[in-house]
Amino acid sequence: MRPDRTSPELGPDGTPQVMLLRRGSDRWLAGPPWIYRADLNGDPGLQGGEVVRVVDGRGWFMGKAFYSKQSKISLRWLTNDDVAVDVDFFRQRLQSAEALRKLALPGETTYRLVHGEADGLPGLVVDRYGDYLSVQFLVPAMEQRKALIADLLEEQFHPKGIVNRSDVSVRHLEGLLPEKGLLRGTLPPGPVSFDEGLVRMRADLLEGQKTGAFLDQRENHVMAAQYAFGEALDCFSYVGGFALQLATRAKQVTAVEISESASAQLRENAQSNKLTNLEVVTANAFDFLRDAVDEGKRYDTIVLDPPSFAKNKDAIPAAVRGYKELNLRAFQLLRPGGILVTASCTYHVDEQAFEEMLASAASDAKRRVQIIERRGAGRDHPVLLNLRETRYLKCFVLRML
Amino acid sequence: MRPDRTSPELGPDGTPQVMLLRRGSDRWLAGPPWIYRADLNGDPGLQGGEVVRVVDGRGWFMGKAFYSKQSKISLRWLTNDDVAVDVDFFRQRLQSAEALRKLALPGETTYRLVHGEADGLPGLVVDRYGDYLSVQFLVPAMEQRKALIADLLEEQFHPKGIVNRSDVSVRHLEGLLPEKGLLRGTLPPGPVSFDEGLVRMRADLLEGQKTGAFLDQRENHVMAAQYAFGEALDCFSYVGGFALQLATRAKQVTAVEISESASAQLRENAQSNKLTNLEVVTANAFDFLRDAVDEGKRYDTIVLDPPSFAKNKDAIPAAVRGYKELNLRAFQLLRPGGILVTASCTYHVDEQAFEEMLASAASDAKRRVQIIERRGAGRDHPVLLNLRETRYLKCFVLRML
Repeated sequence: MRPDRTSPELGPDGTPQVMLLRRGSDRWLAGPPWIYRADLNGDPGLQGGEVVRVVDGRGWFMGKAFYSKQSKISLRWLTNDDVAVDVDFFRQRLQSAEALRKLALPGETTYRLVHGEADGLPGLVVDRYGDYLSVQFLVPAMEQRKALIADLLEEQFHPKGIVNRSDVSVRHLEGLLPEKGLLRGTLPPGPVSFDEGLVRMRADLLEGQKTGAFLDQRENHVMAAQYAFGEALDCFSYVGGFALQLATRAKQVTAVEISESASAQLRENAQSNKLTNLEVVTANAFDFLRDAVDEGKRYDTIVLDPPSFAKNKDAIPAAVRGYKELNLRAFQLLRPGGILVTASCTYHVDEQAFEEMLASAASDAKRRVQIIERRGAGRDHPVLLNLRETRYLKCFVLRML
Repeated sequence: MRPDRTSPELGPDGTPQVMLLRRGSDRWLAGPPWIYRADLNGDPGLQGGEVVRVVDGRGWFMGKAFYSKQSKISLRWLTNDDVAVDVDFFRQRLQSAEALRKLALPGETTYRLVHGEADGLPGLVVDRYGDYLSVQFLVPAMEQRKALIADLLEEQFHPKGIVNRSDVSVRHLEGLLPEKGLLRGTLPPGPVSFDEGLVRMRADLLEGQKTGAFLDQRENHVMAAQYAFGEALDCFSYVGGFALQLATRAKQVTAVEISESASAQLRENAQSNKLTNLEVVTANAFDFLRDAVDEGKRYDTIVLDPPSFAKNKDAIPAAVRGYKELNLRAFQLLRPGGILVTASCTYHVDEQAFEEMLASAASDAKRRVQIIERRGAGRDHPVLLNLRETRYLKCFVLRML
């Protein structure tokens, strides 16, 4: 390894240049689009936030990347081509991101427009809610290009307003403080409304979860309506993403939500959608399910969409036990022919572990269970080949034999 | 192990009884719904084709199963409950199978109605093509219940005809000879027509592949139309399941099919669907793709749906090399923003191996690739939890960055 530099090396086009160690070069294309500090050939002597030329140990050009000084992830892939990373570059990437959404979700106006590195725009998240955009800048290079990105979004979408929801702790890893506020235009006069299938939902862009709503589950919400019938139970309902969908098709829906304020919001959402067949129970879902089994209750449709159970690897066994308890109870409560829509957003429990847990729960319940669909986040949340790490959401549609 | 029996032991209800060794009991619910000969406590002295009571080493009731004498798979799970496996049992299973299709595919009249053990009807496959049914009996117990199943299908669907397509080599494992012919009613006067999205397809129920068509790819065919645009290429086209879909949306489609007769059928199908933007090239897809790369051709949409490349485990490495060559070429031929729909029906190459192959091909092509959807067979082809073995079909929707 060569000594750390005090002034950055510059490439032929004047762009700072970062040299990789052998391991880094090997990973550049074969692995995730990230290079860790340990794979750099010395400290490149940069401030952080630069677009850099990436070269291998022989000095051969490999591509361009964002450089981060504080994060363990030093380089984030931008391109393999020796092109200028300028306003046209970002315009083209944003247009490409929109092209995918137009193809996959024709006619939709609420979707994730930019999903970070999976759209070739590392550290940038943009959610569209009709006339408003909600944006997250997650790395210094994007933070420094806030105005550029906002300009391009205005040019492309002519939004009424762009909200900055960079109030996320992950920014600490990059030495950035959380930030929240209006970036361009005007704030919506209240929560923004948007359609999920037949249901009208609302999102508070400034104070809601994530950028306002759980867009990743949007397609799964609508899908659940298709399978719903008879007596339905929705656990961990929050403001009703699944429960309201069930109510459009099932005879009767019980929605279980532990938070008083979310319960109240769910009741309002049911009312504004004129869904009178939905009862909200403010309770702990684990307790509710245990009691329901004890009381011999039966359902035709059940949805389980719990919050993440494991923030790190050490918590995996406990998370799997939690999932198994929930799903075992659901299997016990479902009538033959009944449908279970069961989700997990725990990144550390991957699809295979989730499926093994389900198989084990079915076996304990002495039931045979059909897998009808294995789903993930919606099509506006692409993942990269070689970057399975971003595949956190699992959503299975099961049916009891 | 106790000695082999010369006359079968009978349970309290007069049903022959089969005792499991410890390993068999442990597997009865935790594993696939199959018990192998080695997990039985001796030869039960049966003819094959019986419904048997399954008991553990202490004689405790575990469930009921089909018994096969010749196959390595001796028992096939029917139920955990001590119920009569009679005409009502099969009627209820057939009704349950139909209920799933009505839920998942409302309004459809062409679908797989019964998918063997995954519908709780081991050794039975029933495909519906509108007014006609095409059936496969794959184990002695079902072969012996041919008339019962035909009666129930007539009662439930009032088909114009039921065709028996038990002309499959897998029957040899069960000591059954291939069989083909009309089982009930009348034969269709010619190929039956059915809709896949906007395309009208035809299936020859007596002479076509499988039971007449590749119903497992039906939903994927229709999905492909959604993503198609610009200049499209379909490889391994057969009679046009994907190619015709592409032609409903893309500007121009090139369909590559090696068989003269399938090419002719594809041209006919294009004509009857009034799709004039489709050119059929009768060629080996590997050669076509290599030449296209050499000539610097570019496409916006590509579909790869090759036949199975590996009939056994020894052939896996060669199969993966074959897939990689195809997908690498596709990545080289696609424009930025272009779509690749890539499938594999090779049972021995599982989803993870398929995805790793794709990642490796993308890396060799020096391209970053988005995964938009990971799909399998259609929702009328359920699989059981604990029976991943039946999950043979993979179909990814990818997009080039």
